[in-house]
Amino acid sequence: MRAYDIIRKKRDGGELSQTEIEFMVQGYTSNEIPDYQMAAWAMAVFLRGMNARETADLTMAMVRSGDQVDLSGIAGIKVDKHSTGGVGDTTTLVLAPLVAAAGAPVAKMSGRGLGHTGGTLDKFESIPGFRVELNKEEFIRNVNTVGAAVVGQTGNLAPADKKLYALRDVTATVDSIPLIASSIMSKKIAAGADAIVLDVKTGSGAFMKTLEDSFALARAMVAIGQEVGRKTVAVITDMDQPLGRAIGNALEVKEAIETLRGGGPSDLRELCLTLGAHMVTLAGKAANPAAARARLEELLQNGQALAKFKEMVAAQGGDPRVIDQPELLPQAQKVIPLLAEQDGYVARIEAEELGIAATMLGAGRETKESKVDLAVGLVVNKKVGEAVAAGEPLVWLHVNEERRLAEVMAKVKAAFTISCQQPAPATLIYGEVV
Amino acid sequence: MRAYDIIRKKRDGGELSQTEIEFMVQGYTSNEIPDYQMAAWAMAVFLRGMNARETADLTMAMVRSGDQVDLSGIAGIKVDKHSTGGVGDTTTLVLAPLVAAAGAPVAKMSGRGLGHTGGTLDKFESIPGFRVELNKEEFIRNVNTVGAAVVGQTGNLAPADKKLYALRDVTATVDSIPLIASSIMSKKIAAGADAIVLDVKTGSGAFMKTLEDSFALARAMVAIGQEVGRKTVAVITDMDQPLGRAIGNALEVKEAIETLRGGGPSDLRELCLTLGAHMVTLAGKAANPAAARARLEELLQNGQALAKFKEMVAAQGGDPRVIDQPELLPQAQKVIPLLAEQDGYVARIEAEELGIAATMLGAGRETKESKVDLAVGLVVNKKVGEAVAAGEPLVWLHVNEERRLAEVMAKVKAAFTISCQQPAPATLIYGEVV
Repeated sequence: MRAYDIIRKKRDGGELSQTEIEFMVQGYTSNEIPDYQMAAWAMAVFLRGMNARETADLTMAMVRSGDQVDLSGIAGIKVDKHSTGGVGDTTTLVLAPLVAAAGAPVAKMSGRGLGHTGGTLDKFESIPGFRVELNKEEFIRNVNTVGAAVVGQTGNLAPADKKLYALRDVTATVDSIPLIASSIMSKKIAAGADAIVLDVKTGSGAFMKTLEDSFALARAMVAIGQEVGRKTVAVITDMDQPLGRAIGNALEVKEAIETLRGGGPSDLRELCLTLGAHMVTLAGKAANPAAARARLEELLQNGQALAKFKEMVAAQGGDPRVIDQPELLPQAQKVIPLLAEQDGYVARIEAEELGIAATMLGAGRETKESKVDLAVGLVVNKKVGEAVAAGEPLVWLHVNEERRLAEVMAKVKAAFTISCQQPAPATLIYGEVV
Repeated sequence: MRAYDIIRKKRDGGELSQTEIEFMVQGYTSNEIPDYQMAAWAMAVFLRGMNARETADLTMAMVRSGDQVDLSGIAGIKVDKHSTGGVGDTTTLVLAPLVAAAGAPVAKMSGRGLGHTGGTLDKFESIPGFRVELNKEEFIRNVNTVGAAVVGQTGNLAPADKKLYALRDVTATVDSIPLIASSIMSKKIAAGADAIVLDVKTGSGAFMKTLEDSFALARAMVAIGQEVGRKTVAVITDMDQPLGRAIGNALEVKEAIETLRGGGPSDLRELCLTLGAHMVTLAGKAANPAAARARLEELLQNGQALAKFKEMVAAQGGDPRVIDQPELLPQAQKVIPLLAEQDGYVARIEAEELGIAATMLGAGRETKESKVDLAVGLVVNKKVGEAVAAGEPLVWLHVNEERRLAEVMAKVKAAFTISCQQPAPATLIYGEVV
């Protein structure tokens, strides 16, 4: 078997066999197939596509390229949740304790933020003392006793995906549905998921900008799940504006606590209930999503979700007092309002621009080496559809370092479109693929 | 400007500007653009194509990547001829003296054989004493005094093409019309051609197997010529069977001498007259191809073409006695017939298989390091359409080394299809693109 022939076959629109896909992935991981052949292959895949079977074979070949996390020490069906990445996406902070409170084990491996989307690990670390570097035994014990744990990725998971992604990133072959779908699914499967709930973001602040592409990606990932025996559900959700109101690590923890207390922004609450209902159902802890949702609403109402969060924080070394005293979280030195200059309605908020603005304040990493300021960020005071009067704050900026403040304020201001007509209500959930 | 954006633009079917193409070619030649980006770009070009303007810009960018041969020391319009490569293609041996005898200067840079097609330099070197390593001054003086000279490529011509071709060869991006067309034309233009006559071979023994692809390649190259101000004519000619009867270096020289004497195989003679007529016309030495052809026929008839060959051989240090005593050329130890096993007509000869068989006898190079045996090869006794009786020779094998003889004989035999019905006459010239 030769890489050349496999490139040519895909170039001419052929369907690759499992053996051929395995040959490419293993050969590339072991450096036997050079970057330039893999680049030509990736471009051929980009332009010719892959069917569901090929995409599933690519996924599993990437899973087999490295370690696979063994979660067999945890009783029950392990359901993982994955978001394709958005701005101010606080859902994991809410869902881990909420779903655990409903009896479904949550064994979550997360990443750090890079670019304009925040990282779940950074958010948890804004709780004083919180440790994300649990060893494998601690991780499994915590899930078994508390019901939920969140750790950084350990082991050499899907190294083929990591290597291929780095190549795609410099050869204009990122935006390919089968390549994106297999990349995401390979990491989730290698991390030990039995079932997967996908939050596919769509809109200006998301990786997928159009509804059509977002549904196509959702269908591709659900198809992979079917092919490889991991039940997978995808929910297509809005990222035309930031989710909730907080963007920034400690600010999002505070927002998660409010939501776990039964309050919080309505869009964040709604999305957590929708995703959580699927997680609980896939874990076999409810008969259907409607029953699961009713149970989750109850857990938010009766304080058990919040109690579970406190328990989880304590089990990972965090200070559980932050749940009742959020002022113990890192606080920025200054809170500066950005004021509206005219009366009207918020017609549009460019989520990606706000994510970049928060990163410029220090909430995220501009490069891998950047240090994150856990206290800073933005709180959106007026979301799409809300009325605003001149002089009212659109956004509160939580600031420690004022060096780039003028630039940040200009960027935040430019992200808002104010209209004199009230816009149609924003859609939060566009659909599901099951 | 970034390679990434140029790859993406072509990936999405965009038209690249001259500046963008120049950036890719120069960056790749200077190693600033890595192989993997160029490979992704080549695959995008393969699948998305290039229009005539882009192809011409690519050609000239590759010309500018290295040296350009200065033929201004030679008076008149320098017309080069290029064949896309066939088996037993003796045309350059005939055309150089024939066209020179008609007054058109022939300053020919040629290559050595690799794989199943022979190289013009090897063929000339089978004449005892013939030197192809003239320096630039000798080369130009010979063209000015004799009218024709043939040398090996000197200088660093189109290094971008050389580097890109090596990459295409391992990334399944060779068979792309704009990439092939620009590769051929860049080398001819860098070698100093004012005008170009292209012999585009078509059929089983050629690079282009179908008539449709051959015409497309011809049109692409003529379009480049138009864009860059080099008058270019392409003739699409048959390579479903070997051209002429001889395959092998000294054997082809002998056949060329017969042809220059006014005899020789009718297909070789016809092709030389057709290509030569275009060369003489483009050089401004005849009013039109018909007049040029009449003049060339006369030169074959009256001995002036053969005399010019003798003059050219002598000027490059070769033994001119070979023209009248071909037995002075290297001779194989044995001449072995391959006999027909049945009566019938030759319906088909796989040219490529005969080329490989000749190479196995030592007439060509299986690797760059192989040494060529100038004496050996094949002489086809029965061509397509000819009647054959059982026991008559189909091919004469000129052999020095008998080690692989059984294998070679089996291959030659398998290359022939004998039919009981007389086939339609083989077509030699399928058309022209001017």
